[in-house]
Amino acid sequence: MAPSAVPREIIQSPSDYPGVESKAVATSHQNGSPQIDSSERIDKSLGEFRCLIADLTEQFKGGHPGGAMGMAAIGVSLWKYVMKYSPENPNFFNRDRFVLSNGHTCLFQYSFLHLTGYKNMTLDQLKSYHSSRIDSICPGHPEIEHDGIEVTTGPLGQGVANAVGLAMATKHLGATYNKPGFPLVSNMTYCMIGDACLQEGVALESIQLAGHWKLNNLVIMYDNNQVTCDGSVDLCNTEDVNAKMRACGWDVIDIEDGCFDVEGIIAALVKAKANKERPTFINVRTVIGIGSKVQGDAKAHGAAFGVEGVADIKRKFGMDPEQHFSISEDTYEFFRDGKSKGRQIETEWNDLVQKYATEYPNEHSEFQKRVRGEMTEDWSKLIPAKSEFPTTPTPSRKSAGLVCNPIAAEMQSMMVGTADLSPSVNMIWKGKVDFQNPDLRTTCGINGDYSGRYIHWGIREHAMASISNGLAAFNKGTILPVTSTFFMFYIYAAPGVRMGALQHLQCIHIATHDSIGTGEDGPTHQPIALPALYRAMPNLLYIRPCDSEEVAGAFISALQAKNTPSIISLSRQNLEQYPAYSSRDGVQKGAYVFIEEENADVTLIGVGAEMIFAVRTRDVLREKFGIRARVVSFPCQRIFDAQPIEYKRDVLRYRSNAPRVAIEAYAVNGWERYADAGYSMSTFGHSLPGAAAYKYFGFDENKIAPKVAELVEEVKKDGIEALRGEFRDLNEGPR
Amino acid sequence: MAPSAVPREIIQSPSDYPGVESKAVATSHQNGSPQIDSSERIDKSLGEFRCLIADLTEQFKGGHPGGAMGMAAIGVSLWKYVMKYSPENPNFFNRDRFVLSNGHTCLFQYSFLHLTGYKNMTLDQLKSYHSSRIDSICPGHPEIEHDGIEVTTGPLGQGVANAVGLAMATKHLGATYNKPGFPLVSNMTYCMIGDACLQEGVALESIQLAGHWKLNNLVIMYDNNQVTCDGSVDLCNTEDVNAKMRACGWDVIDIEDGCFDVEGIIAALVKAKANKERPTFINVRTVIGIGSKVQGDAKAHGAAFGVEGVADIKRKFGMDPEQHFSISEDTYEFFRDGKSKGRQIETEWNDLVQKYATEYPNEHSEFQKRVRGEMTEDWSKLIPAKSEFPTTPTPSRKSAGLVCNPIAAEMQSMMVGTADLSPSVNMIWKGKVDFQNPDLRTTCGINGDYSGRYIHWGIREHAMASISNGLAAFNKGTILPVTSTFFMFYIYAAPGVRMGALQHLQCIHIATHDSIGTGEDGPTHQPIALPALYRAMPNLLYIRPCDSEEVAGAFISALQAKNTPSIISLSRQNLEQYPAYSSRDGVQKGAYVFIEEENADVTLIGVGAEMIFAVRTRDVLREKFGIRARVVSFPCQRIFDAQPIEYKRDVLRYRSNAPRVAIEAYAVNGWERYADAGYSMSTFGHSLPGAAAYKYFGFDENKIAPKVAELVEEVKKDGIEALRGEFRDLNEGPR
Repeated sequence: MAPSAVPREIIQSPSDYPGVESKAVATSHQNGSPQIDSSERIDKSLGEFRCLIADLTEQFKGGHPGGAMGMAAIGVSLWKYVMKYSPENPNFFNRDRFVLSNGHTCLFQYSFLHLTGYKNMTLDQLKSYHSSRIDSICPGHPEIEHDGIEVTTGPLGQGVANAVGLAMATKHLGATYNKPGFPLVSNMTYCMIGDACLQEGVALESIQLAGHWKLNNLVIMYDNNQVTCDGSVDLCNTEDVNAKMRACGWDVIDIEDGCFDVEGIIAALVKAKANKERPTFINVRTVIGIGSKVQGDAKAHGAAFGVEGVADIKRKFGMDPEQHFSISEDTYEFFRDGKSKGRQIETEWNDLVQKYATEYPNEHSEFQKRVRGEMTEDWSKLIPAKSEFPTTPTPSRKSAGLVCNPIAAEMQSMMVGTADLSPSVNMIWKGKVDFQNPDLRTTCGINGDYSGRYIHWGIREHAMASISNGLAAFNKGTILPVTSTFFMFYIYAAPGVRMGALQHLQCIHIATHDSIGTGEDGPTHQPIALPALYRAMPNLLYIRPCDSEEVAGAFISALQAKNTPSIISLSRQNLEQYPAYSSRDGVQKGAYVFIEEENADVTLIGVGAEMIFAVRTRDVLREKFGIRARVVSFPCQRIFDAQPIEYKRDVLRYRSNAPRVAIEAYAVNGWERYADAGYSMSTFGHSLPGAAAYKYFGFDENKIAPKVAELVEEVKKDGIEALRGEFRDLNEGPR
Repeated sequence: MAPSAVPREIIQSPSDYPGVESKAVATSHQNGSPQIDSSERIDKSLGEFRCLIADLTEQFKGGHPGGAMGMAAIGVSLWKYVMKYSPENPNFFNRDRFVLSNGHTCLFQYSFLHLTGYKNMTLDQLKSYHSSRIDSICPGHPEIEHDGIEVTTGPLGQGVANAVGLAMATKHLGATYNKPGFPLVSNMTYCMIGDACLQEGVALESIQLAGHWKLNNLVIMYDNNQVTCDGSVDLCNTEDVNAKMRACGWDVIDIEDGCFDVEGIIAALVKAKANKERPTFINVRTVIGIGSKVQGDAKAHGAAFGVEGVADIKRKFGMDPEQHFSISEDTYEFFRDGKSKGRQIETEWNDLVQKYATEYPNEHSEFQKRVRGEMTEDWSKLIPAKSEFPTTPTPSRKSAGLVCNPIAAEMQSMMVGTADLSPSVNMIWKGKVDFQNPDLRTTCGINGDYSGRYIHWGIREHAMASISNGLAAFNKGTILPVTSTFFMFYIYAAPGVRMGALQHLQCIHIATHDSIGTGEDGPTHQPIALPALYRAMPNLLYIRPCDSEEVAGAFISALQAKNTPSIISLSRQNLEQYPAYSSRDGVQKGAYVFIEEENADVTLIGVGAEMIFAVRTRDVLREKFGIRARVVSFPCQRIFDAQPIEYKRDVLRYRSNAPRVAIEAYAVNGWERYADAGYSMSTFGHSLPGAAAYKYFGFDENKIAPKVAELVEEVKKDGIEALRGEFRDLNEGPR
């Protein structure tokens, strides 16, 4: 896209900055439009802010100064004039949410948190950016753990999705608890993006959804500096972004001089907040590294300016080149009302909640639970007893419905969605209402409204996971997102699933069709390597239950993991049920003895949909080879790893002479920790009916048993030591 | 989006179908517009085609009939009237490419391949769809291995990206080899999509790029049936798709009655082919499962119709319900000219190439190499000798530039791109020219044209990988794509990388900043679990070299792997160089002895950027603990696994009493196969300068050595057997 305006030249005296005229000094809110301070005062803050950024990147010769400097006027507009927040209570429930999707410009946010008085964000802390200080709260990208940061960003596009989730949460909670005169949940979500976020697919998916849902409480501010690492954005993007956003159902406002036109930005933000119909995209033309000799150039993006460069910037902004990290008392004073305004906003809200408590005591009681992040129902009572499950072969995706549907029906905090696989994933409960813009009832005959808790994500797995992170991040425990699609397509969602794990956000991912047993859809749909990613991922539970009882156990684990997302991996096809062996409590230990055998010659590890091969191989070994095998069920490696060593030794018989064989139709990688041999997959799958696919790849007890018998023979002959460090792949593959 | 036209009712007599008027029977091409057959003849073929699809899904009670039936008129327009192809030579170089991005409708493509006479696609083969037949060439989604299939599709959105790559390939080869009067490479690419492909981020990224590059040889045909698994598309998408496509730089043509209006579809396709400016999006309004009782409903999407349902469809189309898989001789005859037209097209092209050989002998010689998929240069001579590498610490991303830049400069088949990280990944060679639409020279001052071989992908990792699959799939070996970004962001690209591995497409992925040593960018940018995915992925080489010499080895492996994509995993930070130990030949074996020690007490496995900790730990063990350690370098597990057992035993000393410790700052998962203990990461990373990050997580020889010494002591005391099956995690994590 061609620049919409030539950036104005930086000139010597800050009072000469064009685009901002003198205004009254008062900043009280009138009719939603804040009164704006004098241009001198604003310009001074902009100049000092930009020099501070230059100093902070210069000290350790690194970081991302250019974007933060270019966006200064946007920051002043937000933190000084528009956003509702409370520096003394960063987690104030009804605060406006701010997401920095272009997270590498984090100094932008940190510096405004400092100026507006967030307690921990001292100047000393700002200086810890890019330092070796372990106690730094100024990491290279914003992290959710720190006050004033709503979500961890950095991987581009994620923040857009998170912001959509945050805005959904407001809409949903508002529709659920607000009453006439009681706008309990009414905050805005502001998302700052750079050029990159308009290129990443996850953002493009999320933008579609926000337009579809008419999230009018969402504002994207586009730092349109037309520069990325490689240079001009024209190198790789020349679309008409405004037209595209309109086509996606957004309103668009242009700001020509985004480096200085605070008044214009404020007006746009006020208009966006007043928009009753659509989300707003504010296209703000800025200049990267404004005031530096490399302004407008990719060189301003990701490197410090050098000592002379910084001095030059300071001279441009009328500041003393010898002064470093210098914020005047005037500028601190300028931002000081952030705290008092925050206290006032909080008081007003608390009063509102008090009155609500009187008028709507039941709703208030539930609302308070939500605010505290407590679940509204005791889910443990809602999970079926083992005796309630079918005993005939059942797909575990069906079992998951039996377990999850009653919880979803009752538990108001659960929002369940699917990437267009409602008929396959069984997550619809009786009486579910869709999360939708209620206008669709008239325009398209779609039944739903914002209070609905069933989400049609469309065929957008990545957005599904990343927006769900935003839902979960709104307020810890207030919303528990449940996503669903075929397991294979969690490879599309992987960047979002990972960000959820990194941020300690509870979310349950229902991953069906999790094996070659999926069948005819073929290798494109049959996961082989993906489990290795999720089993290795820190702070994630990948749980693969073998029958309905274990599915119950998987949900118990996932529901209890308040700071950890889970993937529950489920079959398309019918699975044998093992009421005599399977145990939900066993799942809580990651692995457990499924079928004991005192003087076993071998331990077979069965997992999920392939448990049947372990159990049947045991039978064949006994009947045809006179070999005694015990069976261990192993639904979750991460949970097992956390068990006491004694338990682990007991289950796996670490020092016995009986070898252990893991049987699973995935790549074996990682099982080597628990087994001496594996019967697994070393290639991609094949398009065949499920049972035929298993057979084709050698998953057949009559093929497995002889291989295990050979191994047992070898151990008897050469001793168990022969297996140390020489893991055996027993499956010879398709024949 | 609201339907643009109410679908016309299916009526009893096929000759009454509206929308197609009788035309002359001749089908010869005039002025680019084919003459069209009589409506009776066309309607008969449409009806028979639709009944065939219904029969094929009914026989095994499964599959996806609805889309294929709805798209029949599009297929007739393409295969009968518009597309250039040769059934007797499916790999004819200048054929038009057809990509079925909505791959679940594969019966659509299979059936047209059958009707137009692709040798292997017999009626018997069509009937193998969803059967247990191992020899089936009709898998549940199209697979590249079979004649007439350009790329494997199924995971939605991928096909759009692949089609963009195929169209790029044509543009690039045309710009490189075509001469006035010699349009050697001039084919079109047609991509069929469903509603889902307009939701998946990878498609949205690719659509942006195609518009940016003005790929006027690319046509997307949108099977706009407004139905997905969950029901109406309105559930999750209400954007103005035409306006969006125009904003992305595409021309748009609407077809109101896509079920029957063959004439209109042909006219649109002809217009698209004549478009000199932009890619074309043909928005074809269709009715899913047309002719069935569930037409227009999600029920027609992914299930057979039942015996009565099929009979009913046949009655609707005037066919005998008792006849199954019935194609009349008339209809076979209708498509029979496909072969003769194909022979003619081939002959004309071969003649053209012959004349070209005379006029441009040098270009012809190179062109022939490209057609045969041979590399244009002997790359092995272009790789620097060990002695040419720096001996001082060097980032391996820099070493990769030293190795790859000279090859890229010379080898015309190599197309190198980056997801906006040109300054970081070092893949620019002197004199590189960008792949760009040359118009940008005047409009934006961007230097490049279609003959350029350097690709600015923008911040679109997923599209980068998936479009690269299309580049590689154009003709085996003709183009070797090289992609690049930070390793962490290959998690965005993972679905594309996987599809490349599944399709045996050679592609080299340059993954820099591959460790916690990346530093300040923090945990969002520091990979921990991702290597586990790529090490487990079939047919993929994940290679992590430790210094420049090993980088050379990694490229040798990757360049030799003609049927396998590779990821070369590289450091941001300086790495020690080991000219005395490191070996490019060693890399070809996956792992090799780096520092031998005859009576070693322990084997340390060093990998990539963390080799330094293995080497230094060896020193500390000797100096402070009197322990003799040998060091193995282990750049690629998959290559090592393919070595003879004797070699593996030799390198890892399988049966010695010396334990093996893998040292790597990733999740340890998978190393258990090769080691008895690991010094690794069990959490996400931390934002600290690289060296400080390593230290924070215990990567420090003075912390590692005592842990290894303890292990050695234990083994001396309890014997090596004590370690069997009880893998030790030696790193206690951050302290």
